[in-house]
Amino acid sequence: MITSLQNPAIKNIVKLSKSKERREQQLFVIEGARELSLALQSDYQIQAVYVCREMFERTKYPDVLNSLPDTIIFDISFPVFEKIAYRENSDGVVALAKPKSHTLNDLKLSKNPFLIVLESVEKPGNLGAILRTADAAAVDAVIVCDPQTDLYNPNVVRSGVGGIFTVQTAVCTSLEAVEWLAEKKITSFAAELQAAEFYQNVDFTQPSAIVMGTEADGLTDFWLKNAKKRIKIPMRGKIDSLNVSVSTAILAFEAMRQRGF
Amino acid sequence: MITSLQNPAIKNIVKLSKSKERREQQLFVIEGARELSLALQSDYQIQAVYVCREMFERTKYPDVLNSLPDTIIFDISFPVFEKIAYRENSDGVVALAKPKSHTLNDLKLSKNPFLIVLESVEKPGNLGAILRTADAAAVDAVIVCDPQTDLYNPNVVRSGVGGIFTVQTAVCTSLEAVEWLAEKKITSFAAELQAAEFYQNVDFTQPSAIVMGTEADGLTDFWLKNAKKRIKIPMRGKIDSLNVSVSTAILAFEAMRQRGF
Repeated sequence: MITSLQNPAIKNIVKLSKSKERREQQLFVIEGARELSLALQSDYQIQAVYVCREMFERTKYPDVLNSLPDTIIFDISFPVFEKIAYRENSDGVVALAKPKSHTLNDLKLSKNPFLIVLESVEKPGNLGAILRTADAAAVDAVIVCDPQTDLYNPNVVRSGVGGIFTVQTAVCTSLEAVEWLAEKKITSFAAELQAAEFYQNVDFTQPSAIVMGTEADGLTDFWLKNAKKRIKIPMRGKIDSLNVSVSTAILAFEAMRQRGF
Repeated sequence: MITSLQNPAIKNIVKLSKSKERREQQLFVIEGARELSLALQSDYQIQAVYVCREMFERTKYPDVLNSLPDTIIFDISFPVFEKIAYRENSDGVVALAKPKSHTLNDLKLSKNPFLIVLESVEKPGNLGAILRTADAAAVDAVIVCDPQTDLYNPNVVRSGVGGIFTVQTAVCTSLEAVEWLAEKKITSFAAELQAAEFYQNVDFTQPSAIVMGTEADGLTDFWLKNAKKRIKIPMRGKIDSLNVSVSTAILAFEAMRQRGF
């Protein structure tokens, strides 16, 4: 059992909270048995799993370790777990996994796809929340353009409760996304505050992508010009803004409603 | 100008981050010029405003102080502001305000009301996010039953970007809410994972309230038994859960869509 906080493997897990380390080592951290289970179902390659047995007793996913070779499972003490865990109410599992490829070419689309496109998403918590919604709405894919955060930020994994593993995700530039959507004949709907058309009046039953900007600044002119249509959500209050993960959910579920789920 | 971190007024603002102090002093903290402006529009009584002028220069709401008497405005230094501020990208304004009354009897309803009822909401961030959505959807009121957090928690004010000021809010027990809804002839729809009916197939054009449980445990049996109908959001992914503020937004905007906004 690993009990030393100075153990090099433990110190490395802490290091992997930094984007630069994740990129250089081509490794990221998964916390939680549910998240690990979803990663395994999606064929993520697991390099090591660190388990604090006294916390793992309360997991709702006791079978998660069964398919993994013993040689990559390491028991750790509670103080060691506390050092590498970043969540409350954790169930004692921290794993290291290899990132996947996330190019537009990797995406497999249904016959009548529906996608979510995010421009310059900044907050990992918002990206995670959108991936969680994207899972529930069973969208074909989330395309992340010019992101300000990386997909494997621990906060994306955590706030997405595993959506990063279950939802197809591509990272690219906005220009690449516009060209790819055109090539695939997918209609893009740019969400903004000043658009002419209300979201509930447009036809999402065609191959569609909703395009969402940042909460602070909305979409750039590039997307406002290049999207096929511009849509807005009616806001009848005094604040005149919605959280971007909330706006995305309203649009995605309206699309699913029109499509009969 | 207040420059001392030991100033009693400054130390008291820090104290007010605690629920007990807010209750005893009958005061709470508002950070941000936009939030203060919304509180003033809603006739909140402001006791004092602390302004860091060098940060206030970048505010988008320079007029917010105009209606306030000079005697309650105090200039503070940047280090003092940093001590009492809890946000990034703040615009230099921290105010102390008196809470309002939040009883069911205080609520003024439209002819065909739509309400959001929350049972035992725990996370201030979720409550704030729901108030922000409630503002945009122009719901009649949010009823908070048996809350685990108080309405004036700094995180509710912050994550709601002022929704706590713009949305009518009542705090009561679940029993009181059930009786009040019955008396007002408002149909209650309990949101859960196992309900028979999908939300998009029910009639929200009648006087309606959606009832939302906690993210971890959902609604208690009390609400499942006492709500008029039980509804669910179709989830077609692998994760089988949505953030409670996201679920609330999907239901509230579907209701608004049915009602023609």
